[in-house]
Amino acid sequence: MRDFLPADVRKREYVIGIIKSVYESYGFEPLETPAVENIETLTGKYGEEGNQLIYKILKRGEKLNQELARIADQGRKPEFPPLDWLADLALRYDLTVPLARVVANNKNELPKFFKRYQIQPVWRADRPARGRFREFYQCDVDVIGSGSMVVEAEVILAVSKILEQLGFEDFTIRINHRTVLSGLLEHAGIEPPKFSEALTALDKLDKVGFEGVVSELRSKGINDHSARRFLEFNTMLSDAIAVPANIRIWNAAMINYVKKDFQHILFPQYHEGLRCLEDIVKLTDRNDGNCRVKIDLSLARGLSYYTGTIMEINVTDLAGSLGGGGRYDGLIGMFGKEQIPACGFSLGLERILVVMEERGMFPPEIADSTPADVMVTIFSDETVADSLMLASDLRAQNLRVTVYPQADKNDKQFKYASQIGVPFLCDLTDENIQSGTVLVKNMTTREKTTVPREKVAETILKSVRVADK
Amino acid sequence: MRDFLPADVRKREYVIGIIKSVYESYGFEPLETPAVENIETLTGKYGEEGNQLIYKILKRGEKLNQELARIADQGRKPEFPPLDWLADLALRYDLTVPLARVVANNKNELPKFFKRYQIQPVWRADRPARGRFREFYQCDVDVIGSGSMVVEAEVILAVSKILEQLGFEDFTIRINHRTVLSGLLEHAGIEPPKFSEALTALDKLDKVGFEGVVSELRSKGINDHSARRFLEFNTMLSDAIAVPANIRIWNAAMINYVKKDFQHILFPQYHEGLRCLEDIVKLTDRNDGNCRVKIDLSLARGLSYYTGTIMEINVTDLAGSLGGGGRYDGLIGMFGKEQIPACGFSLGLERILVVMEERGMFPPEIADSTPADVMVTIFSDETVADSLMLASDLRAQNLRVTVYPQADKNDKQFKYASQIGVPFLCDLTDENIQSGTVLVKNMTTREKTTVPREKVAETILKSVRVADK
Repeated sequence: MRDFLPADVRKREYVIGIIKSVYESYGFEPLETPAVENIETLTGKYGEEGNQLIYKILKRGEKLNQELARIADQGRKPEFPPLDWLADLALRYDLTVPLARVVANNKNELPKFFKRYQIQPVWRADRPARGRFREFYQCDVDVIGSGSMVVEAEVILAVSKILEQLGFEDFTIRINHRTVLSGLLEHAGIEPPKFSEALTALDKLDKVGFEGVVSELRSKGINDHSARRFLEFNTMLSDAIAVPANIRIWNAAMINYVKKDFQHILFPQYHEGLRCLEDIVKLTDRNDGNCRVKIDLSLARGLSYYTGTIMEINVTDLAGSLGGGGRYDGLIGMFGKEQIPACGFSLGLERILVVMEERGMFPPEIADSTPADVMVTIFSDETVADSLMLASDLRAQNLRVTVYPQADKNDKQFKYASQIGVPFLCDLTDENIQSGTVLVKNMTTREKTTVPREKVAETILKSVRVADK
Repeated sequence: MRDFLPADVRKREYVIGIIKSVYESYGFEPLETPAVENIETLTGKYGEEGNQLIYKILKRGEKLNQELARIADQGRKPEFPPLDWLADLALRYDLTVPLARVVANNKNELPKFFKRYQIQPVWRADRPARGRFREFYQCDVDVIGSGSMVVEAEVILAVSKILEQLGFEDFTIRINHRTVLSGLLEHAGIEPPKFSEALTALDKLDKVGFEGVVSELRSKGINDHSARRFLEFNTMLSDAIAVPANIRIWNAAMINYVKKDFQHILFPQYHEGLRCLEDIVKLTDRNDGNCRVKIDLSLARGLSYYTGTIMEINVTDLAGSLGGGGRYDGLIGMFGKEQIPACGFSLGLERILVVMEERGMFPPEIADSTPADVMVTIFSDETVADSLMLASDLRAQNLRVTVYPQADKNDKQFKYASQIGVPFLCDLTDENIQSGTVLVKNMTTREKTTVPREKVAETILKSVRVADK
């Protein structure tokens, strides 16, 4: 887990600012949930592998002592106790499960359709990699309460707008549907109880390759013939057509092909799933530029709670995804009596930042930010109050002003101003104080001007404007 | 720990926005640290009681299994193992200790004086009370690298400006100094090894009263005579003069009194501490309104890392404080080779929010926020794409636009729009689509106007402006 020094924070806040403003422009409202959840809220929601990666918080006080005594009671070589003996709380693992809990618990306070965004950190006890950290921010957007593909279209349009505003031009949003995958699995001769494990294996296609997935499927008891048959559909149907301008042709051809050649697939929701994909493609294409949405039948997504559409954003120079999402019509029902349809998208802040950093995509005012517009020096212990007063007056005129924190030699103060990169320096000597003036130094041009106190802010703002031209 | 629904988040963000902008205007830069710290970073920094309140994270995998076997090995009724057998990580308890760690670890990357702010949650396994939660946000501002009272003055001025901008008019910032307290303790006949426990007891004066503190001091082995002598100084010297306009007179009288009557105090830094308090009073008083800073020799502060100035903000209608801070010149040295002076202030977001909520201090646009300016309805499954396109066009003209998430009956869509409180509705029927118009409904006045598509945003913005007048 990492510290973020000021230059890092400014970049993070720039990206978060754009994400928030786009989500807000789509009518999504902010939600925040606590970092710590009851452990039973999280367990059993993310699949076997996810369960292992949840950070668990130790019980406290007398409760902990009781559990320790219970373990000691077992003597040497105990059956290891279940984790809920020792932990009662856990760190948030994603933002979707907490959302489902909030919706189930606050049904009467929330509108019929709850459109929310949430930008908060989550924690996973995973091995770190490029753009993957143990603490990372998710930027989620979800619509609760509707099963219509309008929802998928809106969240796709919102995240596309965000990436465009950040300066991404080359992203693709791949979409697939869990019931289409189920149809293909069944068609390949794989039994429904194995579907979930088969998708977990397929999700690793990028990492381990075709034969790697076959071998993982074999270890799950799926015979090679079925495994190959399933994978061949998927990979054949997903041969990358990388140029975005061709995606429209690809999608149309794909839909025609799977409708014709797979019409004998019996799995009940297969054809309904295809219609959903078709709808999404239609609703997200404004016909005015690149088509971003690509049907990709090899897309699986790792999380076990998805029930319908699944989605993922990729760019060519990052192995993982910039974000992903899908429909999870069964999750809210796990926390309440009612099944409520839901669908959303999650952008990975760190993934976006890694690519933006490598491509140099930050605007100059973010990349070269300064802590203040002006530094006021302190001439002597006797003039501190005057310097603080000047700083306060300049702040009242919308300048960001830092004060050197003690009386010190002139050259030390100047050196510090250079080090932190403030563009202007205001000196206030005894003489200045008596004559009601300030010595303004432009740190870039090295110009010095003695200015009446009431004109200082104006002088600085004027120079800034000249420099901007 | 609590969920924050949209109306809550907007209030929180309003307050955080003001805090950030004031800190920035003072030249402070943002820092962020991870929620999870190594457990040894936190233990031993907050005193005995603090240690108990740290949330600890369970070890994982093989390491955890080894420790469990070790506990089981002890058999029934074991000596309970030290916590570091089971936990290797812990949740952030405050923002000061992580700052000290960051400064010690990044000395070469940080400027000579590091002025940072940090607004992040912290966690304490404490009993919740009014304005006190297990997860809460601290809004910290600190200056690293200078021992000058300019620092104390700047952080006091910054937090005062924040409270004023939020609309607080009645707060007082009480200040004291740890070496002044040490002088008074010694003068009362209390031995230096007992100083820390004596201050922990004094910190509870508000809660348990004079006799409660005497009895706690007794339990720490301090005799009643010394205890009473110490407390009498403090309480006598701190008889509240509640009216802010009188604080200037109070401070002057106080300084004169303690200088004269306690000049025989031998504790070496007592008089230096008094000079610091005097300086702070002088540097923070602009003589242009209320004086906020009040010397209060009964102020102790609970945390053990303070070495000099201690500060606390109070308002009359909250038992606890809105924030507090102080100087901790020894803390950074615990993480590195070098002792670096440091001082800062921490505002408690939840405390501020509780008081603002009770007093109704939020501006109307925050208190009555709406999720969007306009809702676009969906007439039928066939017109979804047109509705999405209209929404997209309106967003491009800086309106926040939500789309009803599915085709539905007219009255249901209208009802939903009322429920979420959007001020305008845009209907797009087949007829509208053909004629290139939109039916704009003002939800407040119930007016309906058919408007050419390209005039919709203009019409809405005009009505908003009229309504604002």
